[in-house]
Order: sequence, then structure tokens, then C-alpha cells
Amino acid sequence: MELKKLSLLKHKEWAGKLEINCKCPVSTEEDLKIAYTPGVAEPCLEIEKDVNLSYTYTGRANTVAVISDGTAVLGLGDIGPEASMPVMEGKCVLFKAFANIDAIPLCIKSKDVNEIINTVKLLEGSFGGINLEDISAPRCFEIEKALKEQCSIPVFHDDQHGTAIVVLSAVINSLKLANKKLSDCKIIVNGDGAAGVAVTKLLVSAGASNIIVCNLYGSIHQGRDDLDSARAELIKITNPNNVVGNLSEVIENADIFIGVSKSGVLKSEMVAKMNEKAIVFAMANPVPEIFPDEALKAGAYIVGTGRSDYPNQINNVLAFPGIFRGALDVLASDINEEMKVAASYAIANLVSDDELNENYIIPKAFDDRIAKAVSKAVSETAIKCKLNRR
Amino acid sequence: MELKKLSLLKHKEWAGKLEINCKCPVSTEEDLKIAYTPGVAEPCLEIEKDVNLSYTYTGRANTVAVISDGTAVLGLGDIGPEASMPVMEGKCVLFKAFANIDAIPLCIKSKDVNEIINTVKLLEGSFGGINLEDISAPRCFEIEKALKEQCSIPVFHDDQHGTAIVVLSAVINSLKLANKKLSDCKIIVNGDGAAGVAVTKLLVSAGASNIIVCNLYGSIHQGRDDLDSARAELIKITNPNNVVGNLSEVIENADIFIGVSKSGVLKSEMVAKMNEKAIVFAMANPVPEIFPDEALKAGAYIVGTGRSDYPNQINNVLAFPGIFRGALDVLASDINEEMKVAASYAIANLVSDDELNENYIIPKAFDDRIAKAVSKAVSETAIKCKLNRR
Repeated sequence: MELKKLSLLKHKEWAGKLEINCKCPVSTEEDLKIAYTPGVAEPCLEIEKDVNLSYTYTGRANTVAVISDGTAVLGLGDIGPEASMPVMEGKCVLFKAFANIDAIPLCIKSKDVNEIINTVKLLEGSFGGINLEDISAPRCFEIEKALKEQCSIPVFHDDQHGTAIVVLSAVINSLKLANKKLSDCKIIVNGDGAAGVAVTKLLVSAGASNIIVCNLYGSIHQGRDDLDSARAELIKITNPNNVVGNLSEVIENADIFIGVSKSGVLKSEMVAKMNEKAIVFAMANPVPEIFPDEALKAGAYIVGTGRSDYPNQINNVLAFPGIFRGALDVLASDINEEMKVAASYAIANLVSDDELNENYIIPKAFDDRIAKAVSKAVSETAIKCKLNRR
Repeated sequence: MELKKLSLLKHKEWAGKLEINCKCPVSTEEDLKIAYTPGVAEPCLEIEKDVNLSYTYTGRANTVAVISDGTAVLGLGDIGPEASMPVMEGKCVLFKAFANIDAIPLCIKSKDVNEIINTVKLLEGSFGGINLEDISAPRCFEIEKALKEQCSIPVFHDDQHGTAIVVLSAVINSLKLANKKLSDCKIIVNGDGAAGVAVTKLLVSAGASNIIVCNLYGSIHQGRDDLDSARAELIKITNPNNVVGNLSEVIENADIFIGVSKSGVLKSEMVAKMNEKAIVFAMANPVPEIFPDEALKAGAYIVGTGRSDYPNQINNVLAFPGIFRGALDVLASDINEEMKVAASYAIANLVSDDELNENYIIPKAFDDRIAKAVSKAVSETAIKCKLNRR
């Protein structure tokens, strides 16, 4: 059966991809006296005395909220909160399947940034972490920034940072093969949405020094006056030579192209202008900026996409389950840049030097070593940064 | 082991009484293509076209939020949102165990009525119903009223209506035994908190015509100028003879005493002043307004409490699982007075005339006919009232 029809049929059959089950016995009156009244008063009173005990006596330490306003769902755009729920449930399924995290999908019926911030903030006490999902840029930057400042639990916008972490993993291993150093590379990030901004920042955190970000109107440089604050900030950390031009111009001699933009925008002739051993990550979904065959034919050395039917799939699922697992395991108060970089290296290091080749630069989604390795790296880094509470 | 210690130990061992599980397969890449991208786009697009399809393609039709601000938790008072979570999780456990409903515990870190209303309203699209819990009076009245008006899904404050429904069941069967008519009875409701107000209103909906509500300062009558709007409304439907006096005075010749107040406030000499075949429901927890032995000795005919270790336990769990099951089954947009009264009769009718006696006026919590009977009555009444969407 065609995938579209099959998915509708299955979603109807499931009527929700998640269910809640009880971990405590509830068959007798005695059971209820422990799990409910009057026994339940005791953990309540303990938490009243010390709010940190909510991580001991409730499910908080293993619970993440997956929250969206439905404004930037998949490639579908602003389809509304209710319509985003199948994706949010799906995300929760991945949290469970890959990291045994209990994730709760919540959609918020508002597009007002302050209202969304306030809503999430007021729910903080119910959760051990917040995964923001499919919120449109630039609103997502402001929402995440405010929540990171105001919440005592990790807040992580996966469309930004999940993507960035896996891209960095792919970059690390690609450069190993190409025998180049990140700090020497000229990097083009095409797309200044949620993912583009985060990829750029994380590459800088990892040592990149020459990134040029492009959007529809060409390179982001000091002369641009059409940028909101999130994009304007990019100017400070990118384009050191203040290169002005469109993608076709600025891509000359680039070592790495990272596309988080639109289908088909990278042309063969642009790839041909890149430096030798050019690395191309074309992650527009479902149709990439350039198809792998075409890019390779134009001279690219390594090509990755967002698709599972080509080699080198750049897939968020490599990162976010282990990231949250690691943060929750030590009750981290934040997921900072160091933790993200550590996650990237943990993913990259799962590919041994023997295995590493142009068609295998990052592990596959169902490699069950990933979440363990990522969570370990994230926990250890949280402890090193003194962000842990356990 | 002592219950308090055992409960702490068990809550620590469980580390949360709920877990989320997946209802869809997630072992292969093919599985993910259906449950997640790219297949998941289809149900999203269908819901975008018709928001009512969120009840078909997501878990919404079986999901209830259990929401508290932690201001009136059990008998513990305002212990804060995090400290309320063991109770909210316990409530969710009961939803699952008694009615197979997936309930999600959420605590809100605010005491501001408008902020709470807005937060719940913005989350509406994630759920099929809202169960408000342990919110202090009179705030709970305003919050529930606003949400009922503004939400398209049922909003139900269990501390009010769950209690009221089970009290009405107990009253119906007690009067059958006493051979009295509800409309002829003089009824004292002692306590004007959430439960007291709701019990009073539901008894009126069911035909009671002579209720006197008392609080610490005596009967609520037309001369009282110390009442907020929720209590002031009671004057319109109670105390037809405008009786002024304290509990000890107004209880004379009463047929029914309903205590949702404080331990020990009903004295033997007050029970002795009641009408013959006096019915006493003393529901203060854990120590009732009067102990059954004492009330019976003073002349009471039937006595009920909130406790499982005495006959005739008035327990909310008889009502709320079936109430929500019935509302969700037909996607009711509201839980109205008729549905509540129907639930009361459904519970009462489970006790056959043969079984009915002074020590068995309502079924026990673990009688597995209850949720089925209540949900059937509630669904049917919703359809009759044209509140169903399925």
C-alpha cells in the first residue's frame, strides 16, 4: 500500500501512538492506600519540605514535555496546534524507543511568544526537561532563550540543536577522511532558519572560524539591515572577511556546504567551484538541495542528506534521545554548548577508523550504542560544567 | 510496616507511578516512516483540514489532563505544585485502572486565577477532557466556570462534582430505605467549600427543595454579607425559609446531614435533634465529623463516611472514571447537570433492592460494574442533551 494511505490507516487504528500505564499495583484497597489516599500524603509532604524531592517521589526525573505551537511542522508550515500532534506523539515514541524516556506531547493554542513562554514556564514543575519542537523562526529563538533563562530544567529546541549536533558529528568524521582541520575550512551554511542558526553556532563552538551564512538574499554580512536580532548576532561570529554575494559566488573554494534550506538550490556548477575533497550536506526534506549522485558527479567527495535511502543520513534521532537521557540521568539544569559538542564527538566516535569511509561517516539510527554513548558524554560533561543536581 | 513509611518507600521505588508506552511498532526504519516522517505528514494534513479529526488520528479521544495548582491538596492545604504531583499521578492511575483512560498529570506554578485559566485553555487541543483537582475555593469556582465557557471539551472539577455525584447516589438509596422523598427532606450541608457548593447544587438539580448550607459562622441566609459570589449564589437555591442559626440550631428536624467540613463538628446531641430515620454522611477525612458508632448511638438510621474501613464509603472513584469514560466515548463537549444526575442514579441502581440495607447503600470501589454503568448513563444522557460529537 502507498505510504500515505498506510500511514492514515495505521494512525486511525492506533488512535494515538502513546498510552499511559501504571507502574504501581492497583488491584486492592490496600494498593490504593499506598498509591493514593491516605498514603500518598507522605511523598507530598516530603516534596513540600524540599522541592528537589519531586525528582525522587514522582516521575519527573524521567519525564520530558514535547511542546509545539504547530507553526513550523515538518515541511508543512503553520498547520495549527492540533494538526501538529501526530508529529509530537511520534517524537515521544522516539524518546521512549531510543532512550526509555516518558515524553508527553503538548500543543499550545497560541502564536504569541510571551504567552507560549509563560505557559511552558508554568508547567515546568511537572517535567524534568522541555523539548521544543516545530516552532517557527525567529519566534523559536526568543522562546528558547527566555525559557532557558527562566527554567531550572533543560530546555532544548530540537530543530535547532538536534540538527546541529548531528551535523557536527558528520563534519568531524568527514574532515578526518578529508584530512582537513575544522578551523581551516571555509564553510557555507545555506539557510538561516532554526537549524541554520544553531548549526552555525555549534560549529563555531567546535572551532570553526570561517563560516558564511546565506539566505535567499545572499550572504549575511555587515551591510545587511534586513536581519532580526537572532540573525544579526550571526554577523558577529561569521563571515570574518565580510564577503558579499549570492550562494553561487560565495561558495567558491568552500570546503563544506551545509544546506538547511530548499530543494534543488545547490547546482552542479556550484559544487564544481568548491575546494577539493568538498563536503556537501544537503538536508532539505524530502527533496535535498542537490541529489547525492549529481553532487558526486560534480566533484563532491562526501555527500550526506536527511534521507534514509541514501548513505550518510543526518538524522536528529541520533542526538536528542541520548541528549535528554544524559541530562536527566544527572538532573542537569541545562543543556549547554559543551554538552552538545560532547554529544557530537560521542556520535562521531562510534564510527571506527576501520569502518569510516565516504559512504559511512555517521552511525545508522538503529545502532543501539548511540543513545548510551551520547548520554554518557552528556552526563559527564554536565558534571564537569557543574550543571548536575544528582 | 507503617503506612507512611511504606508509601515513601514505594514512591521512591516507583519513581513515578506512570509510564508512557508506544502503541505503534518502532523497530525498523519502515516503522518510523509510518509513525514518524515522512508518513506522519498525512494525518497532520487531514487534521489541518478538519480539526475534529484530531480525535481520530491522535490519542486525544482517550486522553484527560489532571490539572492542579497545588493549593488545596487532600487535607494538606496549599503545598505547592510540585508537591501535589504524587496525588495527581495517583489520580491518573485511578483513571487508567478504573476506566482505561490515559490521564496526564500537570501541575501549574501559579495561583493567579486568570493565568491558570489561560494555561489550561491553551493546552485544550492536546486533550479530550480536563479534570481539575485540588484547587482551593473560591478560586476553583471561577476557574471551572471560565474554562467550561471557553473550552470545547469537558471540564470537570472532581473535588466538587465527583463528591456531589456519589453523595447523591448515597442519598437516593438511603431515602429508598427510609421511605422518604428527596423533595420533602430537610437537608443540612455543612461546609461551603468546593464539595459543599457542588453537593448543594446537584441535590437541587435532583429535586431537593429545602437545603440549608452552614459554614463556620452558621447558616447561609439572606442577611449574610460576608459571602463571595459563588456562595452568594447558594442563597438563591437554598434556605427557602431563610433560617438563621448555627449548626446545632438549624439541624433540628433535619432528615439528612451532609458533612464536607471538619473532624468532630457533629455532636451526638445534634444528631439526636434530627428527624426520625436520620441520614448522616460525615465525610471529613481522615477523621469524620462524627464517627459512625457515635452517630448510630445518637439515633441516626444510616451513616456514611469517606473511609474504607467503615460501611458506606462515599468515594469519588465511583464516579469520575465512568463520567469521563462516558463523556469521551461520545466526545461530549461538556459534562452537564443531567449527566451528573444520570451518573448518580447509575451508581445507586447497582445496589439491588434485595441487597440494599443500612450498611450497604452504595457499591464498593472495586465493583467492576460501576465504570461501565456510569459511562453508559453519561454517554446516553450526553446524546439526549445533544452534547455528543460522535
